[in-house]
Amino acid sequence: MSVPTVSRVLNGRSDVAPETRSRVEAALARYDYRKPVGADSPTRTRGLLDLVFHEFGSTWAQEIIVGVERAAAPHRVGVVLTELGGSHRPPQEWIDSITARGTRGVLLVLSRLDDTQRRQLRARSIPFVVLDTDGETPAGVPTVGSNNWSGGLAATRHLIELGHTRIGMISGPEDVLCSRARVDGFRSAHAEAGLDVVPELIRWGSFEVPAGHEHGIELLRRSDRPTAVFAGSDAQALGVLRAAHELGLRVPDDLSVVGYDDLPLAGWLAPALTTVRQPLAEMASLATEMLIDLSDDRPLASQKVELGTELIIRESTAPPR
Amino acid sequence: MSVPTVSRVLNGRSDVAPETRSRVEAALARYDYRKPVGADSPTRTRGLLDLVFHEFGSTWAQEIIVGVERAAAPHRVGVVLTELGGSHRPPQEWIDSITARGTRGVLLVLSRLDDTQRRQLRARSIPFVVLDTDGETPAGVPTVGSNNWSGGLAATRHLIELGHTRIGMISGPEDVLCSRARVDGFRSAHAEAGLDVVPELIRWGSFEVPAGHEHGIELLRRSDRPTAVFAGSDAQALGVLRAAHELGLRVPDDLSVVGYDDLPLAGWLAPALTTVRQPLAEMASLATEMLIDLSDDRPLASQKVELGTELIIRESTAPPR
Repeated sequence: MSVPTVSRVLNGRSDVAPETRSRVEAALARYDYRKPVGADSPTRTRGLLDLVFHEFGSTWAQEIIVGVERAAAPHRVGVVLTELGGSHRPPQEWIDSITARGTRGVLLVLSRLDDTQRRQLRARSIPFVVLDTDGETPAGVPTVGSNNWSGGLAATRHLIELGHTRIGMISGPEDVLCSRARVDGFRSAHAEAGLDVVPELIRWGSFEVPAGHEHGIELLRRSDRPTAVFAGSDAQALGVLRAAHELGLRVPDDLSVVGYDDLPLAGWLAPALTTVRQPLAEMASLATEMLIDLSDDRPLASQKVELGTELIIRESTAPPR
Repeated sequence: MSVPTVSRVLNGRSDVAPETRSRVEAALARYDYRKPVGADSPTRTRGLLDLVFHEFGSTWAQEIIVGVERAAAPHRVGVVLTELGGSHRPPQEWIDSITARGTRGVLLVLSRLDDTQRRQLRARSIPFVVLDTDGETPAGVPTVGSNNWSGGLAATRHLIELGHTRIGMISGPEDVLCSRARVDGFRSAHAEAGLDVVPELIRWGSFEVPAGHEHGIELLRRSDRPTAVFAGSDAQALGVLRAAHELGLRVPDDLSVVGYDDLPLAGWLAPALTTVRQPLAEMASLATEMLIDLSDDRPLASQKVELGTELIIRESTAPPR
């Protein structure tokens, strides 16, 4: 056994015949050999990409991770997870660390980079793609999103067609573009049906369960309570279902509820949730493919891609009494 | 501006004064400089650790990722996600690729490495820690788990104290040690109360929602249907709640349900789920700390750590009619 052969096995090179590899492994085991830490860290790295969440732990993060992993695995690209919102990873230090370590590129989920940070990535030839959009993404930044306005329109049309005229809406944060697009779809569905939107029935909050619960309780305690609520996420819708349960209202008899996302959970709830399907995993896979193309200097067919949304009707919506 | 200074900025070194860095960045932007790809990939890498799931997308993966990220961030260690079950990452190739790239260590979640693979990691001085246990973990392998037997005992005692005598149990896979421990706790609670376990009321399956739904439907359609079901995960419990809903049974009036895990979801369901709290995020944080200690050659206080489980009583359990 030559030294270069043993070295090749230890450093994970693929140009070693299987039986040679086995013999080397056996010899290493026999002598209980351990490679000295940091002795000769290889300069050549396999590919890594960085998946960055503004704040981690959101309900739909799992769907996005599944989609990224599904697209990255066939390319043998590893996925490094980062939460920028955590105070332990200030953006400057994070950019320095990925520069030092090397990355195929950065996939940003609802997280902002300012002009300086974008310039820093460009100067280091680190490509980046934005998934969904938190505010206006500048021209030239590749983006994958979904049609939020159409989703808001379809959900509200469905409720109006069932006969609802007093409809509450709980949306995401007001400064997030996708929230605003859904509310605009909600307004357009009212306008085309000749219905007035009641301003007090539109609420803004986080996309998570507690916001849905809190706004749900407030909306459902009103003397002029809505007969239907359109929530900005399935998590918020779960909070509204819980609020209805606490107030003794039955869904869909006393209240119709529509969610947004179509998480795997939605179909298993009792009642199963009517919701707008946003193909999060597919969006994440597509953004990952775009990032890998960019890192290989392959031009993108399109800088901005938007996937369609689709209304999935289940058990949580019915005509008002 | 000297070449070494520019190089230090480009390579993410921290030994550059802030104003110098700004000047260099500005100059790079002015000349639209891009670092040639692969020109001088730095040999020194910041720390990465590898978080490995056997199969990704399980309901509680998110809790584990949150716990790992929380512990890794203050150490400035990046987290690389891998799904070994995916056919695109055969174990040999994966070991080769982390060897080539370098890693602080490997955290395995319910995933098995065989003797050869363990030997390969040891030969390369790559430490590893196992989270939870999928079968017997060999001595000398650091492990973090929770007390599954106590959890099974507490859940079943609670149902027996409420007056239930025909209790169904849906557990995880029969070849996974934590499933067997929970079933043994279930049996012991029966034994101490002088009750017989009905063998047909014990079911084995995956930890996910569809298994809970399928076994739930079968158990609840029996002529001698149980008045309570203890599910091996909150996801399975969600499937049982759904099965009850489809069969027109009300929870907890007609059926009591206990879950396992206490995912954030559990308290928001209607009815809120009584469940055994397994501190998944804390387990993951602790396993991460152990891994970082090992990679820094600090000895572990203990090779095997087990965190306690706790019964959380909510709305889904009540005395039988």
